[in-house]
Amino acid sequence: MKQLTAQQIAEKIGGKLIGDPNTVITGASSLETSKQNQITFLGSKKYLPQLAESQAGVILITKDLEKELSGGHNYIICDNVDLAFSEILLIFAPEPITYAPGIHPSALIDQSVSVGQNVYIGANVVIEANSVIGDHTSIGAGTFIGQEVKIGQANEIAPNVTIMHRCIIGNKNILHSGVVVGGDGFGFVPGPQGLVKVAQTGIVQIDDDVEIGANTTVDRARFEKTWIKSNVKIDNQVMIAHNVEIGESTIIVAQSGIAGSSKLGRGVILGAKVGINGHITIGDGVKVAGTSGVVKSVPAGEIVLGTPAEGQRDFMYRHSLPKKVKRLTGKLDELKKEIQQLKNK
Amino acid sequence: MKQLTAQQIAEKIGGKLIGDPNTVITGASSLETSKQNQITFLGSKKYLPQLAESQAGVILITKDLEKELSGGHNYIICDNVDLAFSEILLIFAPEPITYAPGIHPSALIDQSVSVGQNVYIGANVVIEANSVIGDHTSIGAGTFIGQEVKIGQANEIAPNVTIMHRCIIGNKNILHSGVVVGGDGFGFVPGPQGLVKVAQTGIVQIDDDVEIGANTTVDRARFEKTWIKSNVKIDNQVMIAHNVEIGESTIIVAQSGIAGSSKLGRGVILGAKVGINGHITIGDGVKVAGTSGVVKSVPAGEIVLGTPAEGQRDFMYRHSLPKKVKRLTGKLDELKKEIQQLKNK
Amino acid sequence: MKQLTAQQIAEKIGGKLIGDPNTVITGASSLETSKQNQITFLGSKKYLPQLAESQAGVILITKDLEKELSGGHNYIICDNVDLAFSEILLIFAPEPITYAPGIHPSALIDQSVSVGQNVYIGANVVIEANSVIGDHTSIGAGTFIGQEVKIGQANEIAPNVTIMHRCIIGNKNILHSGVVVGGDGFGFVPGPQGLVKVAQTGIVQIDDDVEIGANTTVDRARFEKTWIKSNVKIDNQVMIAHNVEIGESTIIVAQSGIAGSSKLGRGVILGAKVGINGHITIGDGVKVAGTSGVVKSVPAGEIVLGTPAEGQRDFMYRHSLPKKVKRLTGKLDELKKEIQQLKNK
Repeated sequence: MKQLTAQQIAEKIGGKLIGDPNTVITGASSLETSKQNQITFLGSKKYLPQLAESQAGVILITKDLEKELSGGHNYIICDNVDLAFSEILLIFAPEPITYAPGIHPSALIDQSVSVGQNVYIGANVVIEANSVIGDHTSIGAGTFIGQEVKIGQANEIAPNVTIMHRCIIGNKNILHSGVVVGGDGFGFVPGPQGLVKVAQTGIVQIDDDVEIGANTTVDRARFEKTWIKSNVKIDNQVMIAHNVEIGESTIIVAQSGIAGSSKLGRGVILGAKVGINGHITIGDGVKVAGTSGVVKSVPAGEIVLGTPAEGQRDFMYRHSLPKKVKRLTGKLDELKKEIQQLKNK
Repeated sequence: MKQLTAQQIAEKIGGKLIGDPNTVITGASSLETSKQNQITFLGSKKYLPQLAESQAGVILITKDLEKELSGGHNYIICDNVDLAFSEILLIFAPEPITYAPGIHPSALIDQSVSVGQNVYIGANVVIEANSVIGDHTSIGAGTFIGQEVKIGQANEIAPNVTIMHRCIIGNKNILHSGVVVGGDGFGFVPGPQGLVKVAQTGIVQIDDDVEIGANTTVDRARFEKTWIKSNVKIDNQVMIAHNVEIGESTIIVAQSGIAGSSKLGRGVILGAKVGINGHITIGDGVKVAGTSGVVKSVPAGEIVLGTPAEGQRDFMYRHSLPKKVKRLTGKLDELKKEIQQLKNK
Repeated sequence: MKQLTAQQIAEKIGGKLIGDPNTVITGASSLETSKQNQITFLGSKKYLPQLAESQAGVILITKDLEKELSGGHNYIICDNVDLAFSEILLIFAPEPITYAPGIHPSALIDQSVSVGQNVYIGANVVIEANSVIGDHTSIGAGTFIGQEVKIGQANEIAPNVTIMHRCIIGNKNILHSGVVVGGDGFGFVPGPQGLVKVAQTGIVQIDDDVEIGANTTVDRARFEKTWIKSNVKIDNQVMIAHNVEIGESTIIVAQSGIAGSSKLGRGVILGAKVGINGHITIGDGVKVAGTSGVVKSVPAGEIVLGTPAEGQRDFMYRHSLPKKVKRLTGKLDELKKEIQQLKNK
């Protein structure tokens, strides 16, 4: 079992220790569940009430909370509690699971496929004709890669992923299990015998350093490409429709969906379960609250919420309508009385 | 074809027969579609209007509906219509599909894996190093089980499931196809070159007698565990984020999502498409109506609905605002007239 | 590289050319991104402002927009722009990826399975006992087909699909990756030791010419069948519960869910993220706006929206409540003043 003193930890993360430097720490946990030999963190004022009862051996804390500290604990003051705690988690975590480079003998790789250096390809992986796999990429068991797919370097593709023909995956991306990249976009036109499929002739392009959560689907474009730019982070069960474009470092939380041909700028944040209409533009840095339905374009920097989504002020007014209507009802009753009094005179 | 008389069925399910004991039944169907040789059930008062036109040979019914019965049918009065009908369905259903114990020769099981007695392992299953599979567990074709996974006894794991490294599955659980257990939680911190992944070092632990529907995802914890306790029932396409805890016998209907570190108590019911914010607590026995978005903790026993979710009384008031505003508008116009009359005097 | 003149294209799609017949076109793109050697389309008035700046060599346009055209472009007037553009996309698209008939040697097909003529079965496909695969059907790599499944002719089943035992798939259907057909319906009854599973003894039946998007799940019936009729088009991540029936040519957009035993008529359109309650009926031709939650049956032909869903007029009234309440507040303040004036007299 790994163990470090409070002093050693403070040095590792470059923090300022307040308390006993010799406290021995052997693991990390939450504020609520940590024991005397564990380290935890206090991420926001919200959790201050739980501080007194915590049994943690050391508590990471930001500068601005330093005045609020109560006695009986050891603290490490650090600039970024989240980053520091992540570093500590890695120290005490079990050894990460890794896969040595190599191709499992059961993998079925077409002879026309080009495979780079130091690649790991798991059991029962299927890679079809004319695809390319870059150096240092790992592909988990059971994953399917169709024809003419281009996969760059140092990607981590989990087991049971599906990447359909001609899609392009850049470098250093992480795709989790159940992800489907390049299924057909959803398009139909009415015909005399019913709905007729509109061919989806484009591809999906994913740039670099993108993470895509389990069971998320990214549809191929009707023409040209559905495009996920670098450093985009997508959670589980998100739906990206055909011809959507997503700008750099945008975050999309679980179960959100973006309809066809919409464009998201850089640094956008979509909360969970957000719906974005088709053919609209969401500007750089826009924040959309979870469960909102956005029906029209949103200028850069705005915060919107609700369905149909509106600005915070409008939303708050709408949300407070019950109070307002009660007050109106009360006032109206008063006026009625006053009028009655006037009449009686 | 199996056949039973109304009398035989009444005896099997311990119900009281009203009508012809010799009616022959060869199958089961719905109230609307049942024919003379079929048995059906009337589950609630709501469907009483359809009773007259039903051609069913026998109708299961609860005691409290006994007075409402119309002539021309055979009835069996029983305590729990739902349970009784399930029993009858099993009598007339085709033989269930079962898999004899054995390991398909195509399964790729690391030699370090411990496999119990009477286990079924299907075609192309992959089980990686140091995992454990308990007695009487069956694992469907194409399922992936990562390194150091512990799976207990008598689990039924469907085809094409993914269980990632170090996760723990107890006993008598059912996991349907497309389920992903142990994908990374969704966590990032801003860095100078964009968003940086927060390591997800924990696991998923599923206790006993849990059912998880198709394409549901349960993310591994940032640290320690995401925990689904015994007898929890989860429908399809549900998203359980990292470090969530779900109490015993809680029901989560399809397409719901629970954000990181939230805790659900025992016997909670989430309707379909519910969203639960991160870092909140849902008390024992809470009921959340379908499509609701819950943004703050809910005390035990409450019923909440809407987005943001509120109590029934508040929700009903909010829902009835259009009526209230119309009434206010009318009253205001009356007052205006009265004031005008006063002025005219 | 393929190339056609504007004249040749106009002839192919039966449209009327306005402009230079000799313009050479080598590809297709959007109005915004098309270059001089590319063809695009103008689908609705909404995009007219972008017309002036488009550099496209040819623009497809409907008759009714003919009067709005600006100079400097070549146009082809056609009856159905969407259909015509689809035709053109296919001309310039890269050759489609196809799979020659044949069974990959790694496919594991039980000897009792009947396989038709000109069938393609990909790598690592598993087909269990007593199933039937019709002529001209193709089954992508890694797909699982359980026991006693009946699959008709000319179906395209993508890689990593799961079709469970006894389900019936008709002809000319398209199932995308990650689809799960025939997982258990979600049903439990309370028992003395907690929730007890209700057996799901029925099947899923999919008729002809149905398309089902990636990671959509269709649960097997509690008894008899969950039934998707011909020409139904279902997008990604849709959830169809047990015993649901969906009428011909109905469209269900992504992330929608339909709860148990509900019936949708013909030609229904559900927008994205719609929820339909259990045990209700949605009439022919009903349109439900995206993100709506429908809690009761809707008569044929209606348009509903919101949660709980209501008619357009009611929804618009509800949506405009903030304005109405502001106006009421203003009027009330006026009346108050008038009353004060009367009092002062």
